[in-house]
Amino acid sequence: MKVAGQHYRTIRPVAGGQEVEVIDQTKLPHEFALVRLRTLDDAVSAIATMIVRGAPLIGATGAYGMALALRADPSTPGLELARQRLVATRPTAVNLRWAVDEVFAAVAPLSPSERAAAAWQSAAEICDEDVAQCASIGEYGRHILAELAHRHPDRPLNVLTHCNAGWLATVDYGTALAPIYKAHDAGTAVHVWVDETRPRNQGAALTAWELGQHGIPHTVIADNAGGHLMQHGRVDVCLVGSDRTTATGDVCNKIGTYLKALAAHDCGVPFYAALNGPTVDWEMRDGLLQIPIEERSADEVGLVRGRSAEGRVMAVSILPEGSKAANPAFDVTPARLLTGLITERGVCPATAEGLRRLYPEMAG
Amino acid sequence: MKVAGQHYRTIRPVAGGQEVEVIDQTKLPHEFALVRLRTLDDAVSAIATMIVRGAPLIGATGAYGMALALRADPSTPGLELARQRLVATRPTAVNLRWAVDEVFAAVAPLSPSERAAAAWQSAAEICDEDVAQCASIGEYGRHILAELAHRHPDRPLNVLTHCNAGWLATVDYGTALAPIYKAHDAGTAVHVWVDETRPRNQGAALTAWELGQHGIPHTVIADNAGGHLMQHGRVDVCLVGSDRTTATGDVCNKIGTYLKALAAHDCGVPFYAALNGPTVDWEMRDGLLQIPIEERSADEVGLVRGRSAEGRVMAVSILPEGSKAANPAFDVTPARLLTGLITERGVCPATAEGLRRLYPEMAG
Repeated sequence: MKVAGQHYRTIRPVAGGQEVEVIDQTKLPHEFALVRLRTLDDAVSAIATMIVRGAPLIGATGAYGMALALRADPSTPGLELARQRLVATRPTAVNLRWAVDEVFAAVAPLSPSERAAAAWQSAAEICDEDVAQCASIGEYGRHILAELAHRHPDRPLNVLTHCNAGWLATVDYGTALAPIYKAHDAGTAVHVWVDETRPRNQGAALTAWELGQHGIPHTVIADNAGGHLMQHGRVDVCLVGSDRTTATGDVCNKIGTYLKALAAHDCGVPFYAALNGPTVDWEMRDGLLQIPIEERSADEVGLVRGRSAEGRVMAVSILPEGSKAANPAFDVTPARLLTGLITERGVCPATAEGLRRLYPEMAG
Repeated sequence: MKVAGQHYRTIRPVAGGQEVEVIDQTKLPHEFALVRLRTLDDAVSAIATMIVRGAPLIGATGAYGMALALRADPSTPGLELARQRLVATRPTAVNLRWAVDEVFAAVAPLSPSERAAAAWQSAAEICDEDVAQCASIGEYGRHILAELAHRHPDRPLNVLTHCNAGWLATVDYGTALAPIYKAHDAGTAVHVWVDETRPRNQGAALTAWELGQHGIPHTVIADNAGGHLMQHGRVDVCLVGSDRTTATGDVCNKIGTYLKALAAHDCGVPFYAALNGPTVDWEMRDGLLQIPIEERSADEVGLVRGRSAEGRVMAVSILPEGSKAANPAFDVTPARLLTGLITERGVCPATAEGLRRLYPEMAG
């Protein structure tokens, strides 16, 4: 997608295929900065500190992290170590493990001298595949939005989204935001309610920023406000991403997604998760029991980052001295609360049968 | 309750009954500052800018605002004007209208020369009544907490609360927090999950602060986290306040309350609203249709106030340039989602019949 009119992907090879360039997402929306990853350590750190985030982009960065690691040490122990270190950075998203395993499988049979180039090629293919999948999610999803919009031809379609599942969360286009971009570009009038998404404010910082760059009307709201808006008919559809989806259609996504799904269910508002195949964990059947939920630093709750009146980007503490905080980063929305899943292969009910029909080779 | 060991009420007459002193709640938790209200304008401004907030305390401030107004102009037009200006400051809480009308009714029949003293007396009675009611809510509520605690004798009882319905929201004790203080003081081990309560962070700023002053274990969480905690059995009961309660038991409270009530209902967690009689609007039967919801400034979403690393209290902007925000301040939790109402007269189901039995003289 475009930043100030210029096309970007969130991650790309540079320096003749020796380094990887990513957008530093911890600096948005106040500063647009690019960062070079040169080593496995750089890739591990970029994922852990959320310079890159979003399940598909974490996967892509993991894949390039394998390639960077193999440039330094293409031995079999080096390959194993790189896989272990990358997979351990973030426990919840399954794309990371999937992408790292893809690269591993591509290079493990090769001689050490061939591995780095093959890993680089595999990472590039993973990125291109992610872009194609997100574009396809956008196409399937925009038809849902267009149909809902026809019911209210007198006003824009109001879409609520949580966190950032836009192009910044993927390599390009996004998952939940792809249908919005495609619908907007095809002439459907859309307005987006953007949950700010505490504690890291990915909605306010990233989703609002990328929607603004693309010229899509949007309004940021506190995470508390969505239920009220749904009660009063001011949300036509909810669209979120997924960090891991069970084979039965449970969706693990940014903390707070479950609350919006409950409100949508209570108010009769359609609620879709948009995701690509690598987000599905085919081994899991109960998201609440099985998906590990990352606990992040309490400082993410206690310290809020923003821009001061003088233009300085800084953090302020909102807690009383002596009060502690807890910070679970994801929650699980049971499949029963979802209207459907929008994937690169089409739209399906959030059920084992629905996913099996779209991915017969995976569901076994 | 106590601040650094000294007993305070949130509002009290000073200067020989010529002025009113309140705690400036916009400065907490970073600074404990007292403010003097000397005129009707001071009282109107203190309510509108949320120097004082919380339905019962807004009512008490409105009552003293009438007294301050009548010192300057005890005429009948002056009396009418004071009532109109005070009631217009905040549209959602019904205690404000109730308290102002109480003072109005007490002084309107008197000659102008007698009105100021009578208003002062009436305001003091309203405050004392509020304290007695909150203490009684605490007594009824603590038995509910003690009973729930008996089911888990091996660990503290986990209570989730939203916004601030503590002593800072009332004259003393609080509504939702009164049972927690009383239970703690009676020896029940309690731990409180404190929703930070964006956009104004009354949970992080006020509830965490007053619980800390009283030595009650607590953990601040993003508003997004409560559903996840309930899904995993980490919340035993939810306790919230109410800014307006319909005669049928619908509860209008700080934005986001509805989302927590949905999660509690979905997870089988008891969910109570604690409130005193003046919070009930006996003329309303459908909260969603009838209760006016205050829309506050978008700046409350876009600007977050806190303390910098250098100790300066300041606001930082979290939004991209050009993105706007919306800020509805309350939502309505339908009675069907509530386990019960805890009032100064006892506990009842959130139904017209339940309220009628406790307040037969009001329900007609």
